[in-house]
Amino acid sequence: MLLVRGGTVITADSSQPADVLCGDDGAILSVGPCLEIPTGAQVLDAGGLLVMPGGIDPHTHMEMPFMGEVASDDFFTGTAAGLAGGTTSIIDFVIPEQGGSLIDAWRAWRAKAEKAAADYGFHVAVTHWDERVSEEMGELVRDHGVSSFKHFMAYKGALMVDDGVLMRSLARAFELGALCNIHAENGEAVAWLQADLLSRGLTGPASHAASRPPLVEGEAAQRVIAIAGVHGAPVYIVHVSTEDATRAIAEARARGQRVYGEVLAQHLVIDDSVYKTDDWLSSARHVMSPPFRPRHHLDALWAGLASGTLQTTATDHCCFCEGAKRKGESDFTKIPNGTPGIEDRMSVLWHHGVRTGRLTPQEFVAVTSTNTARIFNMHPRKGVIAVGADADLVLWDPEGSRTISAATHHQNVDYNVFEGMTVTGLARHTITRGVLAWSDGDLRAVRGAGRYMERPCGNADMTASTLRAAARDPLVVA
Amino acid sequence: MLLVRGGTVITADSSQPADVLCGDDGAILSVGPCLEIPTGAQVLDAGGLLVMPGGIDPHTHMEMPFMGEVASDDFFTGTAAGLAGGTTSIIDFVIPEQGGSLIDAWRAWRAKAEKAAADYGFHVAVTHWDERVSEEMGELVRDHGVSSFKHFMAYKGALMVDDGVLMRSLARAFELGALCNIHAENGEAVAWLQADLLSRGLTGPASHAASRPPLVEGEAAQRVIAIAGVHGAPVYIVHVSTEDATRAIAEARARGQRVYGEVLAQHLVIDDSVYKTDDWLSSARHVMSPPFRPRHHLDALWAGLASGTLQTTATDHCCFCEGAKRKGESDFTKIPNGTPGIEDRMSVLWHHGVRTGRLTPQEFVAVTSTNTARIFNMHPRKGVIAVGADADLVLWDPEGSRTISAATHHQNVDYNVFEGMTVTGLARHTITRGVLAWSDGDLRAVRGAGRYMERPCGNADMTASTLRAAARDPLVVA
Amino acid sequence: MLLVRGGTVITADSSQPADVLCGDDGAILSVGPCLEIPTGAQVLDAGGLLVMPGGIDPHTHMEMPFMGEVASDDFFTGTAAGLAGGTTSIIDFVIPEQGGSLIDAWRAWRAKAEKAAADYGFHVAVTHWDERVSEEMGELVRDHGVSSFKHFMAYKGALMVDDGVLMRSLARAFELGALCNIHAENGEAVAWLQADLLSRGLTGPASHAASRPPLVEGEAAQRVIAIAGVHGAPVYIVHVSTEDATRAIAEARARGQRVYGEVLAQHLVIDDSVYKTDDWLSSARHVMSPPFRPRHHLDALWAGLASGTLQTTATDHCCFCEGAKRKGESDFTKIPNGTPGIEDRMSVLWHHGVRTGRLTPQEFVAVTSTNTARIFNMHPRKGVIAVGADADLVLWDPEGSRTISAATHHQNVDYNVFEGMTVTGLARHTITRGVLAWSDGDLRAVRGAGRYMERPCGNADMTASTLRAAARDPLVVA
Amino acid sequence: MLLVRGGTVITADSSQPADVLCGDDGAILSVGPCLEIPTGAQVLDAGGLLVMPGGIDPHTHMEMPFMGEVASDDFFTGTAAGLAGGTTSIIDFVIPEQGGSLIDAWRAWRAKAEKAAADYGFHVAVTHWDERVSEEMGELVRDHGVSSFKHFMAYKGALMVDDGVLMRSLARAFELGALCNIHAENGEAVAWLQADLLSRGLTGPASHAASRPPLVEGEAAQRVIAIAGVHGAPVYIVHVSTEDATRAIAEARARGQRVYGEVLAQHLVIDDSVYKTDDWLSSARHVMSPPFRPRHHLDALWAGLASGTLQTTATDHCCFCEGAKRKGESDFTKIPNGTPGIEDRMSVLWHHGVRTGRLTPQEFVAVTSTNTARIFNMHPRKGVIAVGADADLVLWDPEGSRTISAATHHQNVDYNVFEGMTVTGLARHTITRGVLAWSDGDLRAVRGAGRYMERPCGNADMTASTLRAAARDPLVVA
Repeated sequence: MLLVRGGTVITADSSQPADVLCGDDGAILSVGPCLEIPTGAQVLDAGGLLVMPGGIDPHTHMEMPFMGEVASDDFFTGTAAGLAGGTTSIIDFVIPEQGGSLIDAWRAWRAKAEKAAADYGFHVAVTHWDERVSEEMGELVRDHGVSSFKHFMAYKGALMVDDGVLMRSLARAFELGALCNIHAENGEAVAWLQADLLSRGLTGPASHAASRPPLVEGEAAQRVIAIAGVHGAPVYIVHVSTEDATRAIAEARARGQRVYGEVLAQHLVIDDSVYKTDDWLSSARHVMSPPFRPRHHLDALWAGLASGTLQTTATDHCCFCEGAKRKGESDFTKIPNGTPGIEDRMSVLWHHGVRTGRLTPQEFVAVTSTNTARIFNMHPRKGVIAVGADADLVLWDPEGSRTISAATHHQNVDYNVFEGMTVTGLARHTITRGVLAWSDGDLRAVRGAGRYMERPCGNADMTASTLRAAARDPLVVA
Repeated sequence: MLLVRGGTVITADSSQPADVLCGDDGAILSVGPCLEIPTGAQVLDAGGLLVMPGGIDPHTHMEMPFMGEVASDDFFTGTAAGLAGGTTSIIDFVIPEQGGSLIDAWRAWRAKAEKAAADYGFHVAVTHWDERVSEEMGELVRDHGVSSFKHFMAYKGALMVDDGVLMRSLARAFELGALCNIHAENGEAVAWLQADLLSRGLTGPASHAASRPPLVEGEAAQRVIAIAGVHGAPVYIVHVSTEDATRAIAEARARGQRVYGEVLAQHLVIDDSVYKTDDWLSSARHVMSPPFRPRHHLDALWAGLASGTLQTTATDHCCFCEGAKRKGESDFTKIPNGTPGIEDRMSVLWHHGVRTGRLTPQEFVAVTSTNTARIFNMHPRKGVIAVGADADLVLWDPEGSRTISAATHHQNVDYNVFEGMTVTGLARHTITRGVLAWSDGDLRAVRGAGRYMERPCGNADMTASTLRAAARDPLVVA
Repeated sequence: MLLVRGGTVITADSSQPADVLCGDDGAILSVGPCLEIPTGAQVLDAGGLLVMPGGIDPHTHMEMPFMGEVASDDFFTGTAAGLAGGTTSIIDFVIPEQGGSLIDAWRAWRAKAEKAAADYGFHVAVTHWDERVSEEMGELVRDHGVSSFKHFMAYKGALMVDDGVLMRSLARAFELGALCNIHAENGEAVAWLQADLLSRGLTGPASHAASRPPLVEGEAAQRVIAIAGVHGAPVYIVHVSTEDATRAIAEARARGQRVYGEVLAQHLVIDDSVYKTDDWLSSARHVMSPPFRPRHHLDALWAGLASGTLQTTATDHCCFCEGAKRKGESDFTKIPNGTPGIEDRMSVLWHHGVRTGRLTPQEFVAVTSTNTARIFNMHPRKGVIAVGADADLVLWDPEGSRTISAATHHQNVDYNVFEGMTVTGLARHTITRGVLAWSDGDLRAVRGAGRYMERPCGNADMTASTLRAAARDPLVVA
Repeated sequence: MLLVRGGTVITADSSQPADVLCGDDGAILSVGPCLEIPTGAQVLDAGGLLVMPGGIDPHTHMEMPFMGEVASDDFFTGTAAGLAGGTTSIIDFVIPEQGGSLIDAWRAWRAKAEKAAADYGFHVAVTHWDERVSEEMGELVRDHGVSSFKHFMAYKGALMVDDGVLMRSLARAFELGALCNIHAENGEAVAWLQADLLSRGLTGPASHAASRPPLVEGEAAQRVIAIAGVHGAPVYIVHVSTEDATRAIAEARARGQRVYGEVLAQHLVIDDSVYKTDDWLSSARHVMSPPFRPRHHLDALWAGLASGTLQTTATDHCCFCEGAKRKGESDFTKIPNGTPGIEDRMSVLWHHGVRTGRLTPQEFVAVTSTNTARIFNMHPRKGVIAVGADADLVLWDPEGSRTISAATHHQNVDYNVFEGMTVTGLARHTITRGVLAWSDGDLRAVRGAGRYMERPCGNADMTASTLRAAARDPLVVA
């Protein structure tokens, strides 16, 4: 048993002094002020620290094969780095082969993830449509604890699905009580712009941003919101990076539609100036989709978080080292897309969010953990500090300071997009299922300690949406 | 001790089977599955029931002197009726005399409220400005547990304050860490329209609605949001009844401003058809400000609640019997404004909100109780089900059905705006500070059992706003 | 020569008493007060009448083969009916066969149109993409006076193009200085909804509206605006029928983008109640795409016209008699889409627009004639009353009244969607190229009198857009 | 007679080669290609030039007493400078004394304006309300050719009126068929901010901008739009300088309300960087209300012009030399507000508007002249090139270039806010009522040559608004 003593417990909706007792089975046994120390219990002094639910990163790509490379952080190194930053769970993406079986892919990813040091779940991507896909979606939901499916509106010729597939897949998922998440960029527009830029000889990484302008994301967000609206289904838009998409979500919510938005720590604090450099490598290391944006978009994203238009934060953690990035030296469309982030998300959010007054500490917990747990059906095992919940905790030092650097980070990649940023607010200790995995700079991540999280379908939001959809007269349109 | 056994505990963010043990001191002693029955404890069977935090109505006017009458529900009858509907706390409004002392008024209201059967707090109205007002605001905050001040932008010649007073009072409140709430209607426009309608001989109650069109509310909401924006202060808009004001709040939140909106149960389900009748009394009984609105506004209000643009529900409970209403028989501006609602708010919300899929059960708890507790600094004593919190509970029967009627209600008033509405979802038992006050139709409200709630200043939202305001360069404007 | 004497000349920007002298070559010779009567000139008394530029209908489908039928009004009967209503020019649509030659189709339409009684031009549809299409677009612009191309985002499996084709075609047209017009409905969503409704046994005409809800139009408008925005090209959206699409246009214009919107007379005054009937035929006769909408959309369309968000009015005139409509008796997707309108557009606009104060008489001229002439490069030969312009005039009786009916109309179709509507404001005389073609109820339309209008590319709007696009840094995105 | 030969005539809606013959009575005698040269006519070669209606500046303050100073350009020097820049008419503001007679003030201004070198009209300000004001408004309309009234929502303690006065004055003006124009800034908020900034020792000119943030303008615009909306009256907002106010206008127009917006040439091209300097005088010379804004507002203003949300351009020409500006050396609230602009408006608009593709040449004419003439009832005597109209013309050299400087300008003031800006596009010749007043750098302005323009009430827009207002049921509110 592990007793966390003397801290201030912060959850998504309250803040009060309390101790937390973690049981040997990895669950929380007791929460309250001045708990007695059970015999044999290890005591961890949380004086001056904030005790919060461990972070959940709902968007990672560990050891993902992509654009001819494989992401360098694997399930062990990636989740370990997460623990060092206070993140105790991830949801990664299963990406089937073109036309391939969803179940086969899910099995392959399960196998790769056995080595994870922290808990993990999977979204499964739908990249084409046929009867087997529809059936396998059902099987994944029923038998394998998958309750969310991913769709790409970009990456023409690879992962992209058209509106016909979206119509079908969202309908099927809704029928199953599963949530669809969406990469919203208009892939046809991107493809045209890529060809146009290359044809003008504009082959550098700055063209990556130019080929994916904000309106291309805003358009796709509008579109999938309309498609979900046809069904009355909730929908979750990943890595919202623009004011355009944020506004699209806000407007849909103002009409009563249930739309969720996720924002990446990277997009909140890094702007498009990273592409305005002669340093090819530096620029290429910031190649991700969506790209970094002009500053006014960052303001809109923060406001989106504070107002509840965006509910979750993630990283789209997807690491490629210099060698991989160099593959696109003469053609920006060949640069593997992705940036690291899992280790630093929470510090970056605290420093730039809480310390500036954009977010309260409770809102910080909500957007780094609780909301994700609720939306993706991990709640109340994850995202809370309550008796019976998993003992995934971060002991946060709100005044601790560190300077982010690839030289010291635990991610298996040779750069860090936050390089040189000094942040105040850090994970002093991280506890995963009752076990101390990070303590004062000492990373004790255990290969294979993470467990697969089965996530059931049909949370309260889904039930409410189903009620509303069922009540609609199919012949009445507004 | 009272043990609530076998129910499903629903809070703002979770739903799970648990028992709740209430102590003799009125606080919750324990929450968990299958609690042991302490010796001597009374056991209340909650099988099939939902155990939720007692409702909080942040907007009532018990025995208020207004327009030459006094509201007919006093602090005892009104709070007792609330208990019958599942509401265990209210925040009422102290309205000083024109130019009078805030402290004196607060004392007078404290005296009147001694008879309350449930807990109560006060917002204090600022209806003029001078040095004494400023000082008394400080004293109320420091010494009397008042952390919110009310302002009327309507009622010209009576309660209305102009923009100069708003600028000063919002600045002062922000400095104190107190929240301002605002009745947002343009009083000058209303006054002109009243005179215009009367001059055309349009003296009936329908003119009441015509004198307060939606744009008059939307304008005032926009204005006070701008005024709060100048200071960087949060602001709370009471009884939002229009799409216009809801949109104004949503847009402010999308810019990162902290603005809260409250909606009345009445405005959510009753539209302006109530004024299109030849029955003078029926129409007059629906005279309240803001008035009832065309139906599309109702949709916007529900969407506002679901999206988080509006956070709380209230009733503006203010009862006038036929005799009082008749005072305006020849002049609609003389009809005392107000409708009853406290007893039926929760049933109406459940029936029209949860059962239709507009709100989840958790959101129901949030908008009837928890959000109010947090915004007005009653949290975590109120609005939660947790060890140490006040044992204010409602045991909700989600399938229980009743037909609302003045013939059977407990409110001290001779009509009910929901007359004849059959609702599913009702308070089977209500517990206030550990004592059963309503049980299966038996109202056991105790005169004077309610206690005054001191509400401290400076919650997390306020702290965040202060941080942001302090960081602003006074010379930089966007 | 024909002298129009004693009327009030109303143009898009002024109103003053003036005579108009029309020359034998069909052009206006003189405009001014109290012109002398040339020897041999016919004098037409315009006392009490308004002399306005003849109406231009930019959206008609005469004798179009569609859904297995051919529209019943041919180029003669259709243009003749137009003259009876004050419309002196049309722009019709050339629809190539699937995969076929644009030039061949244009030739076929030219041949069909030889019989027209009034002037006509053509938009040419792009329904697939390959190198030949691109080349033929150039040839049409250079050699055949076509400066606008049509694209369908709906009609999956038939006319629909995807975003890839839109990207290419808009780029090509912009390069040529030609304007693209767009039928904006998401064809994939429509196809899914059609199948879904049929599968539920909902086979009647009301399902037509249900399969094309407003958000399906709003989405497509947003999308094509984004696609045009990528290029910096202007774009013209045909038959805007929803608040959603109107708002999308307004927002694009507020960002500085040049987007035009057209609205049909039918959509301005008829709402979706036409589908709520047991009369199958009546409902089927209102089947058109987009369908008729709930009333609040109509308000938004009128406001769009008044505010300049929408610039033109049209009819999408496309007639199918009972026999043709009956083809869809057991399956709404088989009902040929289309309604008549050309004869009544101007009266309907005047009655419901000018007489209600929604539009001024000058705005009426702008939206029925002048704006269309300018946007589609017929100006200043059409759309004005000035020396040298074509003598296309309507002598409008603002107080004349008539009741619209299929029994009396000149359209070659067995019903009228405005049946029974009494309108005030009618064409007393219509003059086409100096010749009186309609006079006091006497239709003197001459088969073959109409001439093909060559419309050059590159008007002022296009030039401005080109300047702006050229100045953009391809690597800078906002 | 003066024959302008060989130019291209550009009006608000067309562009074509034509000559213009100006009669000795100051009116246009003939317009057309290749006009014969009448005996004795002076011929002015317009080869390569654009012949456009002379500019109209609807917002000037010549020799205005303000803040203890008098504006240095008087009616002669100011209008003469206008002629040098292509502007041939102004509408100036009559500002009555506090509580004083409108008629007396109008007479005083008429007397001062006798010396004007170009035509002039007056808006009359309403700065308080009583029965005499109401009566004098009627007299000004009936007997003195005043059809527009000005209202200040700012300048607390001086010119400011509250919402009660606005309600009354807008109602009265609407009844008279006169248009109200509004200075939209919340004066209470400004006053509070001024005091707050001064109290912090922030006394420099940058505080001027800080005391009038964008939201203070946006709020007031929203408010007066709502007030006008109550009446159904059109309203004209002067010197719109923010995205906030532009959006407020656009939204009102999208609801069908007739709202007009004016933008100053200065606000279109100068941003708030002018206040970020240590050069007190330079900063003070940019003190005007509203102040200069961050750059994104400029983009919104240009888009507002291009989209038709804003209809007119002006200058708020109001000159104070160094001595006057120095009065505020220790207190920014004492710096006389105002900047010069009348001479350079058209060049600045052409250079930054037309040459960049933001506006077409026709739109340039519309926003510099025609729209103003129509809105303020000077049309069709002003703002057009047509037989019978006043021969006010500017012969524009679209390729001519000049560098703006106080050293060379004709304005009677010792600085120019456009100092050093090289613009392409300039007035080669300016003709006022048929007389050449500026020719190739030679200013031939004649003291007293200008005439007072009587502007009647009740144009088409006003008539339409009246129709709509009359049709409203006073008891029906949306």
